[in-house]
Amino acid sequence: MESFTKGVKAPTEQYDGSKLRVLIVKTRWNSEIVDSLVEGAINSLTSYKVERSNIHIEDVAGSYELPFAIQTILCNRVYNKFDVAIAIGVLIKGDTMHFEYIAEAVSHGLMRVGLDTSTPVVFGVLTCLSETQALQRAGIGENSHNHGNDWGQCAVEMGMKRERWSKGV
Amino acid sequence: MESFTKGVKAPTEQYDGSKLRVLIVKTRWNSEIVDSLVEGAINSLTSYKVERSNIHIEDVAGSYELPFAIQTILCNRVYNKFDVAIAIGVLIKGDTMHFEYIAEAVSHGLMRVGLDTSTPVVFGVLTCLSETQALQRAGIGENSHNHGNDWGQCAVEMGMKRERWSKGV
Amino acid sequence: MESFTKGVKAPTEQYDGSKLRVLIVKTRWNSEIVDSLVEGAINSLTSYKVERSNIHIEDVAGSYELPFAIQTILCNRVYNKFDVAIAIGVLIKGDTMHFEYIAEAVSHGLMRVGLDTSTPVVFGVLTCLSETQALQRAGIGENSHNHGNDWGQCAVEMGMKRERWSKGV
Amino acid sequence: MESFTKGVKAPTEQYDGSKLRVLIVKTRWNSEIVDSLVEGAINSLTSYKVERSNIHIEDVAGSYELPFAIQTILCNRVYNKFDVAIAIGVLIKGDTMHFEYIAEAVSHGLMRVGLDTSTPVVFGVLTCLSETQALQRAGIGENSHNHGNDWGQCAVEMGMKRERWSKGV
Amino acid sequence: MESFTKGVKAPTEQYDGSKLRVLIVKTRWNSEIVDSLVEGAINSLTSYKVERSNIHIEDVAGSYELPFAIQTILCNRVYNKFDVAIAIGVLIKGDTMHFEYIAEAVSHGLMRVGLDTSTPVVFGVLTCLSETQALQRAGIGENSHNHGNDWGQCAVEMGMKRERWSKGV
Repeated sequence: MESFTKGVKAPTEQYDGSKLRVLIVKTRWNSEIVDSLVEGAINSLTSYKVERSNIHIEDVAGSYELPFAIQTILCNRVYNKFDVAIAIGVLIKGDTMHFEYIAEAVSHGLMRVGLDTSTPVVFGVLTCLSETQALQRAGIGENSHNHGNDWGQCAVEMGMKRERWSKGV
Repeated sequence: MESFTKGVKAPTEQYDGSKLRVLIVKTRWNSEIVDSLVEGAINSLTSYKVERSNIHIEDVAGSYELPFAIQTILCNRVYNKFDVAIAIGVLIKGDTMHFEYIAEAVSHGLMRVGLDTSTPVVFGVLTCLSETQALQRAGIGENSHNHGNDWGQCAVEMGMKRERWSKGV
Repeated sequence: MESFTKGVKAPTEQYDGSKLRVLIVKTRWNSEIVDSLVEGAINSLTSYKVERSNIHIEDVAGSYELPFAIQTILCNRVYNKFDVAIAIGVLIKGDTMHFEYIAEAVSHGLMRVGLDTSTPVVFGVLTCLSETQALQRAGIGENSHNHGNDWGQCAVEMGMKRERWSKGV
Repeated sequence: MESFTKGVKAPTEQYDGSKLRVLIVKTRWNSEIVDSLVEGAINSLTSYKVERSNIHIEDVAGSYELPFAIQTILCNRVYNKFDVAIAIGVLIKGDTMHFEYIAEAVSHGLMRVGLDTSTPVVFGVLTCLSETQALQRAGIGENSHNHGNDWGQCAVEMGMKRERWSKGV
Repeated sequence: MESFTKGVKAPTEQYDGSKLRVLIVKTRWNSEIVDSLVEGAINSLTSYKVERSNIHIEDVAGSYELPFAIQTILCNRVYNKFDVAIAIGVLIKGDTMHFEYIAEAVSHGLMRVGLDTSTPVVFGVLTCLSETQALQRAGIGENSHNHGNDWGQCAVEMGMKRERWSKGV
């Protein structure tokens, strides 16, 4: 074999997400693209029977705020607890080095928040070199694929597996 | 859609920042640019009814000092507590690699301080490849936009949301 | 000597892995390559007498999920405990900067999980610039070598040594 | 305004450093340059009335040792306590990637030590692409400026401000 | 002065390492080069009167294993305690990005282990762009210098100084 099937293979298990509570935190930078990604995530989540009322959405200005927002909401124990969080943002390379330093701090920050809170945090942050790349990955325009779909599926899987893993494998 | 509206969308909520206490720590490197950014942040904060007397400003020499200063002030529990902090500095690419290592350590450091102190820290550090880039982002000269405005707005939002998030979403 | 033997020298000790419990977490991205790597790891593990029933395999969507999954499973204390974990994934450079930020966050994340859990985590994540590179390192095609073999051997060694090290050297 | 005054503006406050105890840890790599930087720092410190007997100097081989040395000395509570530390070293780009990995680990490591010990650590490590760059920043040769001066001033300021900040702002 | 003496200046103190217990963890990747570096380190250590029986050597497969191995051995409190550790490995740039991600994770990981365990960890990992660079730095071939010598000296110094620093400076 000199080639292979690209992309991600669907999970083999059938998930019933009807009990899952999902937190989505999205940015308002590049909001049209972000909103399309959020819509993709929601569609994917509900296709796994996640109740729309169990999907809680908050927004922040930019991607640098995502780790803090998710940590703060996950660590709140007053009302309810989330099984999984999805961080959704779109970073596009600009003239300065802002893109690089934000992207690096956020990718590490979201990793930290997941490990610290013992709650899976799906990395739904596009790090694109052009606007076209961002549109294509948000399901907008020709030959596009909405990565939000993948993140929703990933969230269902991680939320369900965390439950199983916590009981012993 | 093959294009999209660039920039950040304003928050949908109307914020009343009259109770917010905001910490700004700014650098004295490139102080003219920094001061313009600070002015932009203050204008933005007060437009959300943040009391000028509730905006506390401290300065340090350079950006590397920002995380330490903010952590130290936020962790002081003698007098009062801040709802949010803004770190404002301007890094400009020079001949050595100083820019790169400072920018990376500071962007990670500020992220750490936010997560460790449970207080939002707005990343108001420009990481520019030229002086012109810095001036344009500080609202100085033609076609410029003062990023301090965005940081002030972001600070109001994060300060208010932290309050709400801590009570449960 | 102006040249040297390349590659890794086999451990000098003879390992009997019959008591070892090994966790493998693999990704479903690029699953054909990943599955070949997993097969290589299993072959290597069993060649050291690791019981096939003591090799537990879980899968996640992508490499960003690997640190969280391994931490969660290792920290579960209900049923059993693993002596070592292997994280297996394949990252291939794409058009955006996704590859770079994921690779960096994951390599640091897996390091953290190993140090935090006191359980060795073998870094079985290929970070390739082309599909051909990935195939060659998965034992697929001419002149290829299955790196999974190395990871299995490394896992046996680290699992056995951790046991010995914990008793004093 | 299309241009601006470059460099760092002096602090507005007048500092009396006569009570400050300052730790300097310097490297012996590139010691002539380092020693010039240390001299610059001492001159600056004493100009703020820091007692020469309150400036304690230790040396290590290279920059990688700086974070460990500073943490160890700061965390010693037998004899006395320092108000601030300055890490002084000179890294110069060589043929291998040693420069890059050391510089990154050290800049993050010193940041961590400052935040962990609640003691300001001034980043006095030059990260130069040539020997000429290092000489110019150590006050050696024409058109040179001794960055040690800046670090000494920064240390006085941070030591004094930490004292003030810890009492509430 | 427009030039300066390159390299590292010897410590001014005379060290008697006869009481020091030194841990060396080395990799088996590129073992001929690594073994030469280890030999250099041992020669240097014994020249400072470190007892050969007080130098404990362990090996792991690759550099990614070094932080975990050192942490695990240093944190074992059953038999004895080490005053200092040296991590010795050789990373050589290959076709994929493996070199970069391993080098970065390991340089940060070893820094963390030193700071976390309060035991100095000497960074004896070459990060070379070619095999020739590695050979030259391992004392093999013309115009070569065995960096293991420097690491041994650095280990003696750090082990001795940690003892002194812990009693107050």
